[in-house]
Amino acid sequence: MRHQLTSGVFARRAAALVGALLATAAGAATVPDSESIAAQLRDAAMAGHDIAYNWVSELTTRVGPRPAGSDNEHAAAEWAAGRLKALGFANVRIEPFPITAWRRGTESASLLTPIFQPLVIATLGESPPTPPQGVKAEVVLFPTLEALKQAAPGSLSGKIAMITQRMVRAQDGAGYAAAVAGRTDGPHEAALRGAGAFLLRSVGTDDHRIAHTGTARYYDGRVEIPAFALSNPDADQIERLVAGGEKVRVQLFSTASYVRGAHSQNVIADVPGRERPQEVVLLGAHLDSWDQGTGAIDDGTGTAIIVAAAELIHDLRQRPRRTVRVVLYGSEEVAQPDGPGGAFGGHAYADAHKAELANHVLAGESDLGTDRIYEVALPKSVLGGEFAQTVLRVLTPIGVLLGPRPPEDAGTDIGPSVEAGVPAFLLNQDAMRYFDIHHTPDDTLDKVDRAQLGQNVAAWAALTWLAADSTVDFRAAPPVRP
Amino acid sequence: MRHQLTSGVFARRAAALVGALLATAAGAATVPDSESIAAQLRDAAMAGHDIAYNWVSELTTRVGPRPAGSDNEHAAAEWAAGRLKALGFANVRIEPFPITAWRRGTESASLLTPIFQPLVIATLGESPPTPPQGVKAEVVLFPTLEALKQAAPGSLSGKIAMITQRMVRAQDGAGYAAAVAGRTDGPHEAALRGAGAFLLRSVGTDDHRIAHTGTARYYDGRVEIPAFALSNPDADQIERLVAGGEKVRVQLFSTASYVRGAHSQNVIADVPGRERPQEVVLLGAHLDSWDQGTGAIDDGTGTAIIVAAAELIHDLRQRPRRTVRVVLYGSEEVAQPDGPGGAFGGHAYADAHKAELANHVLAGESDLGTDRIYEVALPKSVLGGEFAQTVLRVLTPIGVLLGPRPPEDAGTDIGPSVEAGVPAFLLNQDAMRYFDIHHTPDDTLDKVDRAQLGQNVAAWAALTWLAADSTVDFRAAPPVRP
Repeated sequence: MRHQLTSGVFARRAAALVGALLATAAGAATVPDSESIAAQLRDAAMAGHDIAYNWVSELTTRVGPRPAGSDNEHAAAEWAAGRLKALGFANVRIEPFPITAWRRGTESASLLTPIFQPLVIATLGESPPTPPQGVKAEVVLFPTLEALKQAAPGSLSGKIAMITQRMVRAQDGAGYAAAVAGRTDGPHEAALRGAGAFLLRSVGTDDHRIAHTGTARYYDGRVEIPAFALSNPDADQIERLVAGGEKVRVQLFSTASYVRGAHSQNVIADVPGRERPQEVVLLGAHLDSWDQGTGAIDDGTGTAIIVAAAELIHDLRQRPRRTVRVVLYGSEEVAQPDGPGGAFGGHAYADAHKAELANHVLAGESDLGTDRIYEVALPKSVLGGEFAQTVLRVLTPIGVLLGPRPPEDAGTDIGPSVEAGVPAFLLNQDAMRYFDIHHTPDDTLDKVDRAQLGQNVAAWAALTWLAADSTVDFRAAPPVRP
Repeated sequence: MRHQLTSGVFARRAAALVGALLATAAGAATVPDSESIAAQLRDAAMAGHDIAYNWVSELTTRVGPRPAGSDNEHAAAEWAAGRLKALGFANVRIEPFPITAWRRGTESASLLTPIFQPLVIATLGESPPTPPQGVKAEVVLFPTLEALKQAAPGSLSGKIAMITQRMVRAQDGAGYAAAVAGRTDGPHEAALRGAGAFLLRSVGTDDHRIAHTGTARYYDGRVEIPAFALSNPDADQIERLVAGGEKVRVQLFSTASYVRGAHSQNVIADVPGRERPQEVVLLGAHLDSWDQGTGAIDDGTGTAIIVAAAELIHDLRQRPRRTVRVVLYGSEEVAQPDGPGGAFGGHAYADAHKAELANHVLAGESDLGTDRIYEVALPKSVLGGEFAQTVLRVLTPIGVLLGPRPPEDAGTDIGPSVEAGVPAFLLNQDAMRYFDIHHTPDDTLDKVDRAQLGQNVAAWAALTWLAADSTVDFRAAPPVRP
């Protein structure tokens, strides 16, 4: 996957090719039915085209890291809006909203006792800095967040609390939910018990000297103590030393800071529907990224997949009945779904478009990388009905199962819209590899698997078309079975 | 390979098991022949024992990184000498020698133009620091060292020269030799043409945001300009930007320094021979490591393999005819085979033991990680003879070929001894994975494949025994074939 260079002008070649293909199919007097068009979109995307790959290549190369509220994130929004206009999308606009940005600054760590060793860490998002001289203290290990919660108040005074829980590799990413509470709530629980700082074995499945960052949760509007993720080999090392009877002292240093009065923004673009333009099928992904990588798989490819899927639909001779809307959210990474700030981009969209949400017929979010989609989860309203069977017929040839249950959590960005009643779908992706890279400096373009990226575009284009070209009411109660 | 904990007391259980095994075999009045003992050593090592793994686990955990001349390297020597004594080796001694040590200090880099992006670098060993304000300049790319040499004198004034050559993955590590000249000689060639600093695509085969350090060569006693390796994804990024027509400016910063009057040391231990104790079969590996990892595969496992092989032989009821000597060299990583300092540990040994070298009958070095041995290369003197056939019979069952040629380069540490006339063998290892990790922070215990480590010990123990228990003259001219 190396050596791929973006063309200076954004390639429309492949899209033109799809258009020609569909024009030929439609040329024989009969207009193809909606399912046939979905199948053609699918096949065109599977045959390989450049829109998605060029999008993520250019975004990650020319803009690079896009932390919320940074100059780079603003540049990414300008770049994306320009590209969407050039691709022919309608109503392209940038909607800014205020945030307090967080900056990593400089960070370092080392073992001091029993012998000097440098450690690889990443400050957790929203963490305060250490004092200028750093924090030097003994590490106390806890296997889980629950175990930390058992520690007595004051028992960690003058200590650094460390959670050692390992993340489990699983196809559906279930290991993440099982481990991430340690990251979000560990700093608070450690602070309650008097700890001077918090350490976490990375919530990640790799074995590289690369730490996985991520956000710690605000309590009363702040993260109380400096909080860090350790690379997994470094966590192993500390565990071995402690198990061998050693007292382990570490030094932690961070100049993390907050930027008040910053702003982020959502980028929005439409493919207007031909019959019911006020009805919207919303495709979401986030444009911001963590600061250490270039946000290729989190979530450069998500934005690439939804843009490419919508663009394939835009290039058809016939528009779908309903509007397809692409929303590239800002400031997702530091979002706190149940915190005071909320999922900033997602909340900002749901607030600004409150009046339209009743006409948002369906929403989906791509934010789990670029590996193959293996399952589609549809709203309860259509499970067991003809729409689901049509989706299954179109997606089965590219390896997608029909999930038996509706989505439980459809994503951070569309979350506030879904809470407001918008029905959601999920295209579940293989997450076996994702959490090797997620939230690390390793999230770079070379990790994008181009063939699997194409399969994602195929599934998104076909499903989006079927939903947007239908008149199905995804909010309706499911059919009663005898 | 995680979760392995070293026992507080160095485990002798496995060695005792081997002794019992061999005692049983030898118990039936007849003394087994030399080949049978070699086969038993091989099988015992393949069956799994703890000596090698515990050695590398304890070394990398309790001592950690061991840069030449550091407190950690000295602690490693003390630790190793103590362990060797506890294991029952004879004549255990530490032989110090003076060096000028090199210290990495703090380092950082970023793209400045066309947009800010942090870069992952590693200062090359022996590099001078940058000025305190860093070096900020445009990057000029060269595909190879030879291409850099074509640049006109002065043409790189005010620029940073960068070599973009990719290292090729190959079983025998041939890709390393093809790329490493850019690292050793690139800084000098760039300085000759006026460059203010030097950048190198990492000489490594991985795709992580981890840079591969290594030594730059002295010219007139120094490296002239600050020199850095870039992680491979960062090198990709710069190449894409330049190919896309961008002018790329970077900032480089380093506080590297030199420590005059430092010292390193070799650690030596013997299993004395029963008939010809003055004749030595030398097994070498290096105890120092780069500073960012913990030197697990470079060369913790090398030291573990030769110690475990010698220990299995030591634990036999019968000593071999000749002495088996283990030499754990210091200060290999910054060694410059043809530079003024020389391969410090290797030179120090060859100098201090000059009078004995004529009685060093054979030497081998383990310094290519822990993956399986697939080929043995023997001195020309024995190729085609009975000794080679015996070696083949013993090693073929564990997947080792008999190489058709004698060793060309037997290793850095034993190099000065080999140059002084000591015959050398090679046990060639699979290097497909080695250069993903080599000279990076990723060189940690979890990368050690325990099963393959056992196969290494098996091959080393069996071959060492056969050579040490023989009276073969490895210096002799090869047999004349009709």
